[in-house]
Amino acid sequence: MGERGILTVVSGFSGAGKGTVMKEIMERYGNYALSVSATTRKPRPGEEEGREYFFKTAEEFEKMIAKEELIEYARYVDNYYGTPKAYVEEQLEAGKDVILEIEIQGALKVKEKFPQTLLLFITPPTARELRNRLKGRGTETEDVINGRMKRAGEEACGMDQYDYLIVNDVLSECVEQVHQIIQGEHRRSYRNQAFIERMKEELKGE
Amino acid sequence: MGERGILTVVSGFSGAGKGTVMKEIMERYGNYALSVSATTRKPRPGEEEGREYFFKTAEEFEKMIAKEELIEYARYVDNYYGTPKAYVEEQLEAGKDVILEIEIQGALKVKEKFPQTLLLFITPPTARELRNRLKGRGTETEDVINGRMKRAGEEACGMDQYDYLIVNDVLSECVEQVHQIIQGEHRRSYRNQAFIERMKEELKGE
Repeated sequence: MGERGILTVVSGFSGAGKGTVMKEIMERYGNYALSVSATTRKPRPGEEEGREYFFKTAEEFEKMIAKEELIEYARYVDNYYGTPKAYVEEQLEAGKDVILEIEIQGALKVKEKFPQTLLLFITPPTARELRNRLKGRGTETEDVINGRMKRAGEEACGMDQYDYLIVNDVLSECVEQVHQIIQGEHRRSYRNQAFIERMKEELKGE
Repeated sequence: MGERGILTVVSGFSGAGKGTVMKEIMERYGNYALSVSATTRKPRPGEEEGREYFFKTAEEFEKMIAKEELIEYARYVDNYYGTPKAYVEEQLEAGKDVILEIEIQGALKVKEKFPQTLLLFITPPTARELRNRLKGRGTETEDVINGRMKRAGEEACGMDQYDYLIVNDVLSECVEQVHQIIQGEHRRSYRNQAFIERMKEELKGE
């Protein structure tokens, strides 16, 4: 039972530590695959085709849209970003739990299309802590940080549309919780209809 | 967040190994409390007041019904069985995850009254395995075993009303899954409304 993988979308405020959580869950457990997005933006130094992104021309990307080869996509500024369906399907079929890191609009679109998708929201324990983490990066100006905090305030309105809310306070605990939630979800009754039907049939024959 | 305990109802076919799973989960993890039922049946040798059951007279029991001191109750043959509310409430308030082992009718009644109750169904991997386990006990006649199998067939129709379905194949894995599911449920968004509201407020102030 539960052989097929589960598609999980992870979102969270910028600065919540999603990237670190994802990295850690991939290292610690064997059964996960990270979805790789397609984008039309240019690769940055050090980024590799198929690792950070699948880099596409606008023409290629629009062809993927037309052929419905994307689970979801969005346009930010002048670039497209999207999730290629083929890779995700392949991994789910192979029994891998696929994790997709996208923001709330995309997350809700995915859930609408695939209702069995699990939506996780990662948050720091307090707003103050979020600001401290953004400051701690030491790479952003006060203005940029204020902008991120403002955006976090807007995103917070969508928090209760997520299935689960995970507080990233102690990293290792947060990673374990994400793992527990995804593994527990494999046991949901609605994900095990085939097992239930088989059991009913067998009991009739006994 | 999630300080209050979660009420979990565990059901399963007779022979699925529920009792062993409960015993093991209590021994292995610290945060659980087993609910103790009240009953009007006479104590059997070795049974202790407050451990196996709270033993009551019919009059006492009916008084508890009238005063709504039971979460659910049922009458089998000539005896009442029920779940005293006070103990469960006390444990949940103290942050303990309370596990209640009752059959399907009772489970659905509890869920109706307390929608945040988690319903878990424990099942052996196959019907054949269920029969083997019942036989293996060596205490029941073929007739009794056939009766249990028939009842399992009836109970199977209620399986998909449970939130989660756990296969008790390897005991230690089953116990870990029950634990993962309950701990994961603590992170459900709807159980963390207070956290969400606080976060929204804080972010407004930032």
